[in-house]
Amino acid sequence: MKAFIYDGPGKTALEDRPKPEITAPTDAIVRITKTTICGTDLHIIKGDVPSCEPGRILGHEGVGIIDSVGPAVTSFKKGDHVLISCISACGKCDYCRRQMYSHCTTGGWILGHRIDGTQAEYVRTPHADLSLYHIPKGSDEEALVMLSDILPTGFECGVLNGKVSPGSVVAIVGAGPIGLAALLTAQFYAPGQIIMIDLDDNRLEVAKTFGATATVNSADGKAVKAVMDLTDKRGADCVIEAVGIPATFALCQELVSPGGIIANIGVHGAKVDLHLETLWDRNIAITTRLVDTATIPMLLKTVVARKIDPTRLITHHFALTDILAAYETFGNAAKTKALKVIISA
Amino acid sequence: MKAFIYDGPGKTALEDRPKPEITAPTDAIVRITKTTICGTDLHIIKGDVPSCEPGRILGHEGVGIIDSVGPAVTSFKKGDHVLISCISACGKCDYCRRQMYSHCTTGGWILGHRIDGTQAEYVRTPHADLSLYHIPKGSDEEALVMLSDILPTGFECGVLNGKVSPGSVVAIVGAGPIGLAALLTAQFYAPGQIIMIDLDDNRLEVAKTFGATATVNSADGKAVKAVMDLTDKRGADCVIEAVGIPATFALCQELVSPGGIIANIGVHGAKVDLHLETLWDRNIAITTRLVDTATIPMLLKTVVARKIDPTRLITHHFALTDILAAYETFGNAAKTKALKVIISA
Amino acid sequence: MKAFIYDGPGKTALEDRPKPEITAPTDAIVRITKTTICGTDLHIIKGDVPSCEPGRILGHEGVGIIDSVGPAVTSFKKGDHVLISCISACGKCDYCRRQMYSHCTTGGWILGHRIDGTQAEYVRTPHADLSLYHIPKGSDEEALVMLSDILPTGFECGVLNGKVSPGSVVAIVGAGPIGLAALLTAQFYAPGQIIMIDLDDNRLEVAKTFGATATVNSADGKAVKAVMDLTDKRGADCVIEAVGIPATFALCQELVSPGGIIANIGVHGAKVDLHLETLWDRNIAITTRLVDTATIPMLLKTVVARKIDPTRLITHHFALTDILAAYETFGNAAKTKALKVIISA
Amino acid sequence: MKAFIYDGPGKTALEDRPKPEITAPTDAIVRITKTTICGTDLHIIKGDVPSCEPGRILGHEGVGIIDSVGPAVTSFKKGDHVLISCISACGKCDYCRRQMYSHCTTGGWILGHRIDGTQAEYVRTPHADLSLYHIPKGSDEEALVMLSDILPTGFECGVLNGKVSPGSVVAIVGAGPIGLAALLTAQFYAPGQIIMIDLDDNRLEVAKTFGATATVNSADGKAVKAVMDLTDKRGADCVIEAVGIPATFALCQELVSPGGIIANIGVHGAKVDLHLETLWDRNIAITTRLVDTATIPMLLKTVVARKIDPTRLITHHFALTDILAAYETFGNAAKTKALKVIISA
Repeated sequence: MKAFIYDGPGKTALEDRPKPEITAPTDAIVRITKTTICGTDLHIIKGDVPSCEPGRILGHEGVGIIDSVGPAVTSFKKGDHVLISCISACGKCDYCRRQMYSHCTTGGWILGHRIDGTQAEYVRTPHADLSLYHIPKGSDEEALVMLSDILPTGFECGVLNGKVSPGSVVAIVGAGPIGLAALLTAQFYAPGQIIMIDLDDNRLEVAKTFGATATVNSADGKAVKAVMDLTDKRGADCVIEAVGIPATFALCQELVSPGGIIANIGVHGAKVDLHLETLWDRNIAITTRLVDTATIPMLLKTVVARKIDPTRLITHHFALTDILAAYETFGNAAKTKALKVIISA
Repeated sequence: MKAFIYDGPGKTALEDRPKPEITAPTDAIVRITKTTICGTDLHIIKGDVPSCEPGRILGHEGVGIIDSVGPAVTSFKKGDHVLISCISACGKCDYCRRQMYSHCTTGGWILGHRIDGTQAEYVRTPHADLSLYHIPKGSDEEALVMLSDILPTGFECGVLNGKVSPGSVVAIVGAGPIGLAALLTAQFYAPGQIIMIDLDDNRLEVAKTFGATATVNSADGKAVKAVMDLTDKRGADCVIEAVGIPATFALCQELVSPGGIIANIGVHGAKVDLHLETLWDRNIAITTRLVDTATIPMLLKTVVARKIDPTRLITHHFALTDILAAYETFGNAAKTKALKVIISA
Repeated sequence: MKAFIYDGPGKTALEDRPKPEITAPTDAIVRITKTTICGTDLHIIKGDVPSCEPGRILGHEGVGIIDSVGPAVTSFKKGDHVLISCISACGKCDYCRRQMYSHCTTGGWILGHRIDGTQAEYVRTPHADLSLYHIPKGSDEEALVMLSDILPTGFECGVLNGKVSPGSVVAIVGAGPIGLAALLTAQFYAPGQIIMIDLDDNRLEVAKTFGATATVNSADGKAVKAVMDLTDKRGADCVIEAVGIPATFALCQELVSPGGIIANIGVHGAKVDLHLETLWDRNIAITTRLVDTATIPMLLKTVVARKIDPTRLITHHFALTDILAAYETFGNAAKTKALKVIISA
Repeated sequence: MKAFIYDGPGKTALEDRPKPEITAPTDAIVRITKTTICGTDLHIIKGDVPSCEPGRILGHEGVGIIDSVGPAVTSFKKGDHVLISCISACGKCDYCRRQMYSHCTTGGWILGHRIDGTQAEYVRTPHADLSLYHIPKGSDEEALVMLSDILPTGFECGVLNGKVSPGSVVAIVGAGPIGLAALLTAQFYAPGQIIMIDLDDNRLEVAKTFGATATVNSADGKAVKAVMDLTDKRGADCVIEAVGIPATFALCQELVSPGGIIANIGVHGAKVDLHLETLWDRNIAITTRLVDTATIPMLLKTVVARKIDPTRLITHHFALTDILAAYETFGNAAKTKALKVIISA
């Protein structure tokens, strides 16, 4: 089968690989119909993720058709139409019992990382019963690719951890795909304001069409004043960090109101300054989270009920044979205005 | 001043009364600009509320202008435009400290009940600092009359107690003004389904335009089957009782799914059967609540942010001098299709 | 092997039965070392539980040694020392994912009910990975028999649902083994008062030694006054119903304070009166729950840390061959003063 | 009257001052019977708190007798025996309504800081109704001095924010008075382990007698290994920072388990490093809080119920005329082994 391979820092290839096989009784083999590219894939290719070894098939998102299941899989059978979670969960360990699937002792984020992933014609999914989801009849397959990772990430790490509530003020720092996913799902809770902050005017324009009540280009260094002006000098009840660098985390600390929450989504590569000398008495919380995808069932219901349209995140389409072009487009988002790209296998 | 008086069971009158005066340092006198009629007012007039004595000026909802304040009032001054909560709260007692204002030891629901109310040209409001709310500039005064009682009641007793959440199934039994207030505010949480149940097809039609995803006329005794058919035989995660009679409470017990909640709003005049022989092992909760109006600040923000339009509940307008006609219209809702009526003083 | 059989209403027998065998890949066979009798077993024998068919081996509590496991069991192996939950959980269905194991679509309370149970030399336990628990080295095996059902039942259905908190007032109606289990586990949260109510002075004496701060014999019909006198006329923040008849549930409704919770544990055989005409405006909650045993891991930690001594519930010991005598003793608790009896297989 | 004055960095004096007078209708004047010294007082004297101006009477803790009340005070009268909260709360502002009294717009921590405090014969307490508490008859006055600040601080900022729960693992970094207050109140929730970490063996010995299950002297730089060895390499569910310097906050980040919480109590004077490069995917929370003292009513109940004995924190006694000696003793805790000192006025 065709598969997209990470071959060491800066090197990738579209290769022929043998079709994967069941290796544990709880495995399933899924024939991929649609997959996509994540910012994390770009990090791996740069060499930032040493736990991902050369030779690995990338990709941790996608939908497809069950090709075969191991003998202990009870919820799925050949031919079932399924959504693949980016997180594999055994359902048995202490972490899984409390729905902290990201830390499953034999799973977590392993697809396209520690085991071969979804940017291929077939993928082996471990712990299939808790890591795949039935696709409701009549659903838009492409919309559901957004439920593998990006929507639960924005929702769980940003909106749920940030306790967005009716009438509250939300500030989202970073209007990339993850920030926009937080923006879309924040609206489940009817906040009074959603202020989107970024350096890219195009993305801020997109944010407005997605429901932001105000946008701030932080290039002039005056973002804090702008947010304070919008909020009667109170700041935001919930600040969502969706970039992952010290400067943006610093900004979040200036935007949060007393009693508020900074919900970090960004993947950080370096330590940051935490200004406890000003924050120690402000009754705030800072949260971190690797997505658990525990909310996929809830998100599926909101898609079916048309409370959210995930396809708004999709800007480009490619065939698996053109995946190099897909990476080119996704990797140059500032120029191509790409958000999420769909790759059909 | 003109005031509408309860004069004993079945008797009312529009009378001249002296303008009220400050009697405690925490009082305010408010000149009423708009008020409305509540179902509870009809109960009082029928004689169902013996704690309300003849001679009482009715009404516990309204907006107006501060005429004067007592010396201990710090948040308001003459001329301020204010919303009046139906609940008076001292802010000091054990109940007030945990925002259970309904049980304030020197307040609670007293307006138009144990002390004179708002269906008059002026009203004395005790505990003004915690019982009045500044009206934001540019707000629609009539919309805010709905925040005195009906919207917080639907929201607190129904939606919050019922823990409505994204994608969940909500069933509301009773499509009168309170049930419709629950319907409007349930949508703050993006539920997947809101099923409205009533005997009156007109109200069910209104419910559809207000956002119900399905409606069921329960006249044929088949409401349980209808809801089960809509929910894959699971029932509703949240069932809101908005009528207050044994038959509707019985229906709620059949509609709730395992793990679900029955949130009672209805004012009950008689005991009901609770079928613990079937419910003891179903992991459900039943909640009751007299509205605390603790969410008025949150609701004000959602109105300002246009997340909700409370004026949709308003069907008729009257002058205070025509309040007898207003009662006639409101009391014959089946015929007049009245929801809430606005009375201008 | 020896096994204790329900043979239809009023009929039981200690019989020879074939040793059970693995029938699903997720099964385990456990050699029972200790088991016990539950009030529910008495109900089955009376004929009150028609879903339990004649010929069934009774018992849903116990500890033992793994004899064999199916090929999909990954957490246990032959020779492991294990605690058996009274609830079987697949870990995959919607209910299991939210730790509502009691409603597992292929499990729940089935042991000694819909499939053969633990009052035998061996038992087949389905869904072994989520229904068995490793016994920590050095633990007292008899103490852990109390974690199969009775302690999680008192804790989850009574204490957790009742939201017992530091300084709060708890009233427990019923001082049988379940009420006493609630009493023991309520003390995890440092309530200010725990008032125990029963008709049996012996059990009330036991309650005092278990930590009750006051006891009330309700035989004189003055229990409400007694509790009000103990609580400055406020009533209890948390009322735990641990009997299961209309009279005790009626008492709970009179004991609960505004804002309080009635947490039902009792197994009810008939409907009860719910006095919504007085409770509709008191901001209370009523909860029901079949134990999920989701807290067994937490309870195991509290036993290891000596925060609780479950052996205090054990009053008698028998051999499996004397199980008829054990039932006789447990069934005549008023005379024998039995709480829980240990049966060694 | 006698009063202890801050007179600029490094300067203090015991002076004669006029007795304070009611200046607002919500004020009370309290005759102090017992007060104490807080670590914050030492910071003020060093000059670390520029918002405290020279000439200020210090002290924000104490108990006493009401001498007079303003006309709007309704909960207290001359002669009442009262506990003084270190936080003044109006009960009306947005922060007070959600019990975030620390951020009261006209109160918060002002006593002995922005207005004259309790280390004197009399003190004026603003917002008396929400800032004083009736002392139950028969209570130990000295025990209750610990409820003005230190016990609610350890409890709210450490134990509640840290979500200590039955069977869980708690690590407390810093065994000074605040860390010990957290240790005492953590036991309300029956954690399985409480590991106390400090550099001072004497304080660690005290911690053991107060209920620590293990102690670690971190002087050898091996505290992380010690805690991991005690917790099966998992770390602590709740880590409480009770020192306030970069080194201790760094340690906390290494001790917290995935899914755990770092609850900061320490008053920090400088920024700290936050290692988001390792924590971003560990699903943790970091909380900060200035004590709200919203739990004083709850703590009073636990003292009355003898669930906690606050007098264990008291090591020395002085008369107000000897307050300079009291400061000397408290300021040299390493040598004097002082925890809290009681000063009788």
